[in-house]
Amino acid sequence: MRVLIHIDNLEKWRAALTKRLPEADIVTSSDPEEHRRHADYLAVWKPPSWLFENQPGLKGIVNLGAGVDALLATPKLPENVPIVKLRDAGMAPPMADYVLYGVLHFQRDFDRYLGDESEQRWQPREIVEKSDWPVGVLGLGAIGSQVAKRLAESGFPVHGWSRSPKSLKNVTCHHGEVGLEDILKQVRTLVTLLPDTPRTRGLIDAERLALLPRGATLINPGRGALVDETALVEALGNSEQEGHLRGALLDVFETEPLPEDSPLWRHPRVRLTPHMSAPTPFEAAADQVVEAIHSWEAGETLATVDRRSGY
Amino acid sequence: MRVLIHIDNLEKWRAALTKRLPEADIVTSSDPEEHRRHADYLAVWKPPSWLFENQPGLKGIVNLGAGVDALLATPKLPENVPIVKLRDAGMAPPMADYVLYGVLHFQRDFDRYLGDESEQRWQPREIVEKSDWPVGVLGLGAIGSQVAKRLAESGFPVHGWSRSPKSLKNVTCHHGEVGLEDILKQVRTLVTLLPDTPRTRGLIDAERLALLPRGATLINPGRGALVDETALVEALGNSEQEGHLRGALLDVFETEPLPEDSPLWRHPRVRLTPHMSAPTPFEAAADQVVEAIHSWEAGETLATVDRRSGY
Ligand SMILES: NC(=O)c1ccc[n+]([C@@H]2O[C@H](COP(=O)([O-])OP(=O)(O)OC[C@H]3O[C@@H](n4cnc5c(N)ncnc54)[C@H](OP(=O)(O)O)[C@@H]3O)[C@@H](O)[C@H]2O)c1
Ligand SMILES: NC(=O)c1ccc[n+]([C@@H]2O[C@H](COP(=O)([O-])OP(=O)(O)OC[C@H]3O[C@@H](n4cnc5c(N)ncnc54)[C@H](OP(=O)(O)O)[C@@H]3O)[C@@H](O)[C@H]2O)c1
Repeated sequence: MRVLIHIDNLEKWRAALTKRLPEADIVTSSDPEEHRRHADYLAVWKPPSWLFENQPGLKGIVNLGAGVDALLATPKLPENVPIVKLRDAGMAPPMADYVLYGVLHFQRDFDRYLGDESEQRWQPREIVEKSDWPVGVLGLGAIGSQVAKRLAESGFPVHGWSRSPKSLKNVTCHHGEVGLEDILKQVRTLVTLLPDTPRTRGLIDAERLALLPRGATLINPGRGALVDETALVEALGNSEQEGHLRGALLDVFETEPLPEDSPLWRHPRVRLTPHMSAPTPFEAAADQVVEAIHSWEAGETLATVDRRSGY
Repeated sequence: MRVLIHIDNLEKWRAALTKRLPEADIVTSSDPEEHRRHADYLAVWKPPSWLFENQPGLKGIVNLGAGVDALLATPKLPENVPIVKLRDAGMAPPMADYVLYGVLHFQRDFDRYLGDESEQRWQPREIVEKSDWPVGVLGLGAIGSQVAKRLAESGFPVHGWSRSPKSLKNVTCHHGEVGLEDILKQVRTLVTLLPDTPRTRGLIDAERLALLPRGATLINPGRGALVDETALVEALGNSEQEGHLRGALLDVFETEPLPEDSPLWRHPRVRLTPHMSAPTPFEAAADQVVEAIHSWEAGETLATVDRRSGY
């Protein structure tokens, strides 16, 4: 059995997979001999399209991350090969920490105090109770459901949104277009943890931002394409005048790294981080790759990516 | 029975106590007739010393906050009247949120990203695992113990410090001078939740700050007097050169409001908030006042402030 890897950090991956699959031939996209790239399985992150050329015997592809948007957009991706993606793999806890930090940032007025600080203004503000601070989590998958759970345990009323109807303890679950409107109208913080698919791209546009209550805040650690950045900047207002939205904490962007001329860099009410909210933990990811390959080899059915839905 | 109140927001307090103690005569420090200030009980926050004059029949004093430093420092405080303070009264959960936010601020590099943002620098950093981020909590009282518990539940190794030996689930407990050194030498974030007493004043001085590992961080939501501010500024370095400490989140200060000329206002690695980490929740506080008065009236023994220890 041959497994071909494409990702940063190739040698680390080669070692991890060799250790876990001693019977297999582990090759990488940078190995010079071309014939050695005919593989049974691919384990890839943002692969180049030439990797898919000349792969007559491919039995499965493992996406080395939770988001398959880049993979599905790759030209020459073979049509009938099953794809699995990393499920959580330990990404949910750091993501939940990131989002909890962001919600507290706004609920406890740390954003306001940062502004006060720069003007040496000592001005305690009354705390809005957590019970009066509903949070919306769009996307209740492997990661979003854990984030919703953590926020609920921390005392926030939580509304969740998914494609199919769901039921989660202490989370008010909504679905469909009407469900989305219900959520937008009432939350003080909106968290976007949807995959980037044809149906979610640009979902949070000017119209939907306007449905949020005045003074609402946005946390986007999902995918940059979910939010229309031009509409967001517009809704945030400028340094003189606060707009409809109070602020945003963003980890992902339409273009990454965020271009130097993006107005988001210098917006006083935008905090931004460089796509670090939930890095893929290496060991757990390697375990999942091997688990998938073992299942395929054993002829088991696996929960695979639905290409039509895009996730 | 007469209860005399002194605090901001007198009328709100008068109404709350009148409702809860319909049989009592509730008077305030701003009532004009002086003879009406002879009381059985005082419920006070930072009282003026004249309030204690001419109180021959005083049976008890309730301090309307968790910290009794201001009360104990008031001249003319009668010597043999028992004092009770508010125990937690709902202050622990907002304090735990504040501290958790602060620890995540440093552990997840939000402080670094804020600096990067101002220079439009896209630079993801490797996350130090929570399990590699020990936190020290000085003070394991009504509030500190809950903060320590919350941090431990959130995945941080926690070391606690108190005067008397303690045992708390998932918290490594230390006490005494040697215990303090043990803690300082190993924590990445130090949280000070001690009362301001003769023994704790100035505790965190240059020498003890130097015991912290290089790059450690400080969160002080306890009392300003605990930390030597001059030594802290020195340890933090300046905008050109990071010092021994990486940063601080401060809620309390030697002088409040923080004077305009304090170097803390404009220090790039200091975040500050205006003594808002855990406001006293009004209803729970009013309940505790009434509970104390009922206990005194019933001749029960109450856990009172130990004036010698100062808390
Ligand atoms: N910034 C980072 O470091 C980072 C790290 C990891 C992941 N992420 C992002 O987080 C996303 C979520 O990860 P995950 O593992 O939780 O994904 P997942 O398990 O695939 O879950 C996706 C969720 O989104 C919902 N959804 C998809 N399309 C929808 C639509 N059109 N309308 C309503 N709901 C829809 C799904 O609904 P159903 O439940 O009904 O299917 C599901 O609940 C990833 O796709 C990735 O983009 C970012
Ligand atoms: N910023 C805010 O908004 C805010 C709000 C509320 C409270 N606070 C501050 O937080 C402080 C703590 O509140 P709390 O209700 O938890 O107080 P507490 O119940 O009185 O507990 C005090 C803790 O400090 C320990 N301690 C006192 N002196 C010590 C010493 N010399 N050496 C070692 N440990 C010592 C005590 O040890 P033992 O357990 O051995 O007695 C106890 O664990 C208050 O005093 C107040 O200053 C600030």
